Amino acid sequence: MKVDDALRTLLQALNSSKPRTESISVARALGRVLSEDIVSKKFLPPVDRSVVDGYAVRSSDVASATVAQPSTLNVVGESRIGEVPRVEVMPGQTVAVATGSVVPRGADAVVMIENTRTPEVGRISVHVPILPGKGISKKGEDVAPGALVLSKGHRLRSQDLGLLRALGITKLRVAKPPRIGIISTGNELTNLARRGDAAKTVDVNRTVLSAMSLELGAQPVDFGIARDSECEILSLMRKAVRSCDIVITTAGSSVGKKDLVPKCINKLGKPEMLVHGIAMRPSLPTGLAVVNGKPILSLPGVPVSAMIAFRVFARPLVARLMGNGVPADPVVKAVLKQSISGQEGHRTFVRVRLRRTQQGLVAEPLPIQRSSVLMSMVAANGIVVIPEDLAGFEAGREVDVTVMGDIET
Amino acid sequence: MKVDDALRTLLQALNSSKPRTESISVARALGRVLSEDIVSKKFLPPVDRSVVDGYAVRSSDVASATVAQPSTLNVVGESRIGEVPRVEVMPGQTVAVATGSVVPRGADAVVMIENTRTPEVGRISVHVPILPGKGISKKGEDVAPGALVLSKGHRLRSQDLGLLRALGITKLRVAKPPRIGIISTGNELTNLARRGDAAKTVDVNRTVLSAMSLELGAQPVDFGIARDSECEILSLMRKAVRSCDIVITTAGSSVGKKDLVPKCINKLGKPEMLVHGIAMRPSLPTGLAVVNGKPILSLPGVPVSAMIAFRVFARPLVARLMGNGVPADPVVKAVLKQSISGQEGHRTFVRVRLRRTQQGLVAEPLPIQRSSVLMSMVAANGIVVIPEDLAGFEAGREVDVTVMGDIET
Repeated sequence: MKVDDALRTLLQALNSSKPRTESISVARALGRVLSEDIVSKKFLPPVDRSVVDGYAVRSSDVASATVAQPSTLNVVGESRIGEVPRVEVMPGQTVAVATGSVVPRGADAVVMIENTRTPEVGRISVHVPILPGKGISKKGEDVAPGALVLSKGHRLRSQDLGLLRALGITKLRVAKPPRIGIISTGNELTNLARRGDAAKTVDVNRTVLSAMSLELGAQPVDFGIARDSECEILSLMRKAVRSCDIVITTAGSSVGKKDLVPKCINKLGKPEMLVHGIAMRPSLPTGLAVVNGKPILSLPGVPVSAMIAFRVFARPLVARLMGNGVPADPVVKAVLKQSISGQEGHRTFVRVRLRRTQQGLVAEPLPIQRSSVLMSMVAANGIVVIPEDLAGFEAGREVDVTVMGDIET
Repeated sequence: MKVDDALRTLLQALNSSKPRTESISVARALGRVLSEDIVSKKFLPPVDRSVVDGYAVRSSDVASATVAQPSTLNVVGESRIGEVPRVEVMPGQTVAVATGSVVPRGADAVVMIENTRTPEVGRISVHVPILPGKGISKKGEDVAPGALVLSKGHRLRSQDLGLLRALGITKLRVAKPPRIGIISTGNELTNLARRGDAAKTVDVNRTVLSAMSLELGAQPVDFGIARDSECEILSLMRKAVRSCDIVITTAGSSVGKKDLVPKCINKLGKPEMLVHGIAMRPSLPTGLAVVNGKPILSLPGVPVSAMIAFRVFARPLVARLMGNGVPADPVVKAVLKQSISGQEGHRTFVRVRLRRTQQGLVAEPLPIQRSSVLMSMVAANGIVVIPEDLAGFEAGREVDVTVMGDIET
């Protein structure tokens, strides 16, 4: 099955249940996904404020001011920062203001101090005309009551938290981090290689998939390693399906254990396995299922394959459960240093090293693309996707590169 | 002073002190910056492993195998996953292997099961020749002892943690998160707007700059609001300089208090203010100083200006203190929907809304670019920089956009 079809099949099989939400304080909301629209109840700014240091005037008083024929005004007070001015600006009058101070009643513009002179104490002369509204940040100019300032599904950034604080909003409803249960399977796996254990493989998948879950804003739950036994796998999967929102298993697809995870999934409940085997390289032996409304990803045991399959299937799944769009993976254009080829009919994920050069970004495919080589992900900071209908890309061609990690100069 | 000159002046004034480091476990290292090179002491994989299901052979035995003239071999055992095979492959013999199992001594290639037949129990026939090394992930193919796998200054990603686990590395030396002391100044500021407080401004800068510090991997320390008094500001700055690695103040640059922060900085110690006033829009009234080896950023009080100045000056500073490169801000190419103009001689930061369209990415400048409008950052998910020597960019032109936040379709 093609990647897009597999993903569509998985998402369609999910109940269209609402994301689970929780209420948290704005101070803890960085990176969280909003589960409600935020509509302002306030004016921002709450009053007309000066955006310059100068004098609040009636613009009509200085409409014909020039250097040769300046308008002269009486200074009748000062609007101090942080205080509401008592004074009102009447025709022929002005009030001194500072950046951020409240514009007094009567005034409709603020002349910058640079455009004034002080011919005598208590009087100023203005030598340029000014338009109404100039030099003022109008009440509600930034946000008016009723304005939708942030939408449901939005991932909160620093500036968003600032706005919420300005609007006096202290609590928010956000998506609960989906719990991702992670199970590794395989007799060859060990948590830590010991001397003389050369035949064992250190299980890196739980470490990597937990970290990738955290990066998505989800909460990983480590269920450990199940040996290649239907009983052990089924027992861990039952626990995981009960307590988690997504369950991920990883397993080699080697002889004898090839069908263990699918067999367990089919015993867990309906509608059983949806997809097994996806036209992608690496990660072909990926399986997708939904059991009792819970999505299950059966990923390959080879870490590089597990990571690629996680990127392709777990990320949209988490986004769906949190009620936002697919998280934006930064994609940049870069020139390929060498030609790359894929397997036709399959979507191929080529790991590359991105470098900034004088000629722009260059993507150098890593020499060994085998999924058994972990360094092909570690030495890489980008992925080039060769679509199913192309044989590859020629050297020198500009391609889209999904960035993973910092780019060196 | 130009932005680049200001930044260079700041960085040059810093002592070239080594980043402060700490030792942490790999499990907690996601996003941390390495303070040591990681050199492998191990082979990965630690043994020759099969990458397919099939039969381990001596390639010379099947060098002339064809469908018409297959080579027949005696199956003398099985290499079980997770176990070291006792059996050795002698000429004319073969051993069954599974993906991930150890390749027995004597064999130098693995024939995929698909390329074999089983004419009788205990014998297989191979009907394609095979090259030495085929089907095998060689001992040390991924990582050999002595290989530099991750360099000092690298920010750790999921796959890096996986590799460290595979190599048996459990502890790492990483950069300590720099402590960033944050002080807001201004009589107009309040922590929470109350009814009747219309002249007060809710302080959003501490919220925003704390969140931005966290995003950089730094540790924000909130010193609260100082009123416009030399005594209060100096007292908070003294505390902050003593206990933090970077100190950030924000303050309006309005009449009367314009010189308070610089005055305090000059009283704190040598070498006093380095830069005051930078040729950028917004954020012109930014000041930079280094006192007793500690960098101090005096940012404008207007939140949008404070954020832009933080991006420009705090990020390289944090990177420097953590011993890595400037954090990679994803930059994408997008077509400008409207023309934008800057102030010549100044670097201008135009906030835009990026959208994915059928024609590719489009950047729409937000209608109000005034720094007093917080929505110009909240509704934006990208920034276009107009360099000092350009008047602006025309509509329809492809420009670089620094991404901040998710991009909608």
